[in-house]
Amino acid sequence: MREYNVAILGATGAVGMRMVRQLENSTVPVKNLKLLASSRSAGTKIEFKGEEIEVEETTPDSFEGVDIVLASAGGSTSKKFLPEAVKRGAVCIDNTSAYRMDPDVPLVVPEVNVDQLANHRGIIANPNCSTIQMVVALQPVFEKFGLSQIVVSTYQAASGAGQSALNEFYGQAQDYLDGKEMSADILPTKGDKKHYPLAFNLLPQIDVFEEDGSTHEEWKMVHETKKIMLNDMNATGIKVNATCVRVPVAISHGESVYFEVEDKSATKEDIQRVIDQFDGAVLQDDPDHQVYPQPITAEGKRSTFVGRIRADQENPGCFNMWVVADNLLKGAAWNTVQNAEELVKRDLVRVPEDYYRG
Amino acid sequence: MREYNVAILGATGAVGMRMVRQLENSTVPVKNLKLLASSRSAGTKIEFKGEEIEVEETTPDSFEGVDIVLASAGGSTSKKFLPEAVKRGAVCIDNTSAYRMDPDVPLVVPEVNVDQLANHRGIIANPNCSTIQMVVALQPVFEKFGLSQIVVSTYQAASGAGQSALNEFYGQAQDYLDGKEMSADILPTKGDKKHYPLAFNLLPQIDVFEEDGSTHEEWKMVHETKKIMLNDMNATGIKVNATCVRVPVAISHGESVYFEVEDKSATKEDIQRVIDQFDGAVLQDDPDHQVYPQPITAEGKRSTFVGRIRADQENPGCFNMWVVADNLLKGAAWNTVQNAEELVKRDLVRVPEDYYRG
Repeated sequence: MREYNVAILGATGAVGMRMVRQLENSTVPVKNLKLLASSRSAGTKIEFKGEEIEVEETTPDSFEGVDIVLASAGGSTSKKFLPEAVKRGAVCIDNTSAYRMDPDVPLVVPEVNVDQLANHRGIIANPNCSTIQMVVALQPVFEKFGLSQIVVSTYQAASGAGQSALNEFYGQAQDYLDGKEMSADILPTKGDKKHYPLAFNLLPQIDVFEEDGSTHEEWKMVHETKKIMLNDMNATGIKVNATCVRVPVAISHGESVYFEVEDKSATKEDIQRVIDQFDGAVLQDDPDHQVYPQPITAEGKRSTFVGRIRADQENPGCFNMWVVADNLLKGAAWNTVQNAEELVKRDLVRVPEDYYRG
Repeated sequence: MREYNVAILGATGAVGMRMVRQLENSTVPVKNLKLLASSRSAGTKIEFKGEEIEVEETTPDSFEGVDIVLASAGGSTSKKFLPEAVKRGAVCIDNTSAYRMDPDVPLVVPEVNVDQLANHRGIIANPNCSTIQMVVALQPVFEKFGLSQIVVSTYQAASGAGQSALNEFYGQAQDYLDGKEMSADILPTKGDKKHYPLAFNLLPQIDVFEEDGSTHEEWKMVHETKKIMLNDMNATGIKVNATCVRVPVAISHGESVYFEVEDKSATKEDIQRVIDQFDGAVLQDDPDHQVYPQPITAEGKRSTFVGRIRADQENPGCFNMWVVADNLLKGAAWNTVQNAEELVKRDLVRVPEDYYRG
């Protein structure tokens, strides 16, 4: 059996640490694991399969001899290093938004469009966390009944903005409970001018604003969903409308999804059944026993949890559902490692001659 | 000028306390204020206009000589005492759900349907908190452009479940930060079997479940909206679909509202303008300067704040908006006192001969 040299870029971040853990519990045969980060984090030691591995500072040459790169160190770091890695023969799975909309880069959620992996030219992109869990819940519905429209409102956890945002949020929560004033330097988004507390609050801004008044996160949900489900970021076959809100939760995003199917004969029970039978989705939908997805029960799990499925009484063919998944696992680290597993399974861990040159 | 004897039923609760404060700062000429509660709270002293008033235990005779009752002591208490109050000549504004769907009881949000006050037969109902803020934001749009559909996802604060739920939530938050296990005895809803922590979590259940899988809170948003905006709880003129989620916020509800207008020529700027010009609504919609409604800035205010207004690029005539209001003020205490102000202004503080007999 072929074994692979794997590198994790951004190994000390909230997602990077989880990539190490997910890789440890994956089917990827790892010959050697290299942990890469910025000079600031170099020297840190992280355990992998009982062995301590020292984090190294990333340089282009770090990727010599590497077969698979799992990247989660920010968009600019990916832009800088992934073409270098591909040039040296490594297949990269990138968890940042750097390459998601590139037509030469497959955007893959294995449950939905694993076949796209075969088209890679050295880089595969991992979608945005809020997109991933929604498409896992909707794909079985789409396959069986068709899908014409999606209206989603998200309830996104602080950890989606990174470990420093999560730490800031915890500090705010303690200050609030102590009756002190809350301060904010990171949320809603590091790159913007104003900052607001998230603790005991709601921030209807994730990422920066686009010209049309939507946020970039909302834009991502629209176009990534189309690219994953219809293989075209501007496809019109499924209309997508998104509102993204940061909520005072640490880990796991919630989503209130309203959708319309093409086959108007579909019933609530039909929707429940196809989701229940779909790999990667777990149906938690028993109102009589107050069973429904919750962030604190989804945390640490790889699955996407779906419940509160209802037929809209006034609009035939329209349904509601409530979707929760661990944004750091299925929304990031696990989906990345899962893509690596699928590459290995399909013997696709090789960079083609017409490789991605950036 | 006529002065009125006012009684507040449930004066020691989270809403009742705020009713005292809102009444103090209202145009209602108060001759005498009576504070009523259960025997457990009798004897408590609450200040009103510089005077200490002792809370009395409620009996049917408590309402002798009372002109206006503001009630917020739970549905069963309203059912028990309001007919007694009406019999004794008091006009009651009830903040519980006890009478909201009664065709003989006007359900009034003054900005929207103040004319309905004239039809009262002794009892006026205050709508559910989540309904109130949504109809204030939508009414100017409805008046100017027509409205055919509403899809709303709520982000509701813990205080909507009462002071004890709020206290439980604060305790959970501290336990979580201290690394202790969280316990739950009240939320998601006192009357149901299972209880889950709200702190750092999301609970997609508010109130008990109906047979169709929706919660009673969701049912309320559908039927109250129709009754307020169309004067018929089962009207089909506006389709309403609601998903209600409790979020780890103390005070002020958020709502992600997707809606379709009849006049397809309406632009985002038109929607912003009519909301901006509407009494009771405050437009906070400036993405360039990161201005949008937030719970912590809405807390303590009487207005309904509206922002994040966007035109759906794929569905002409469809829009998004984000609505926030203090659920204990506009969603409860202030809307009740505001109804009392309007009754006074219209000289409607009298019980008609065909008064409500329960």
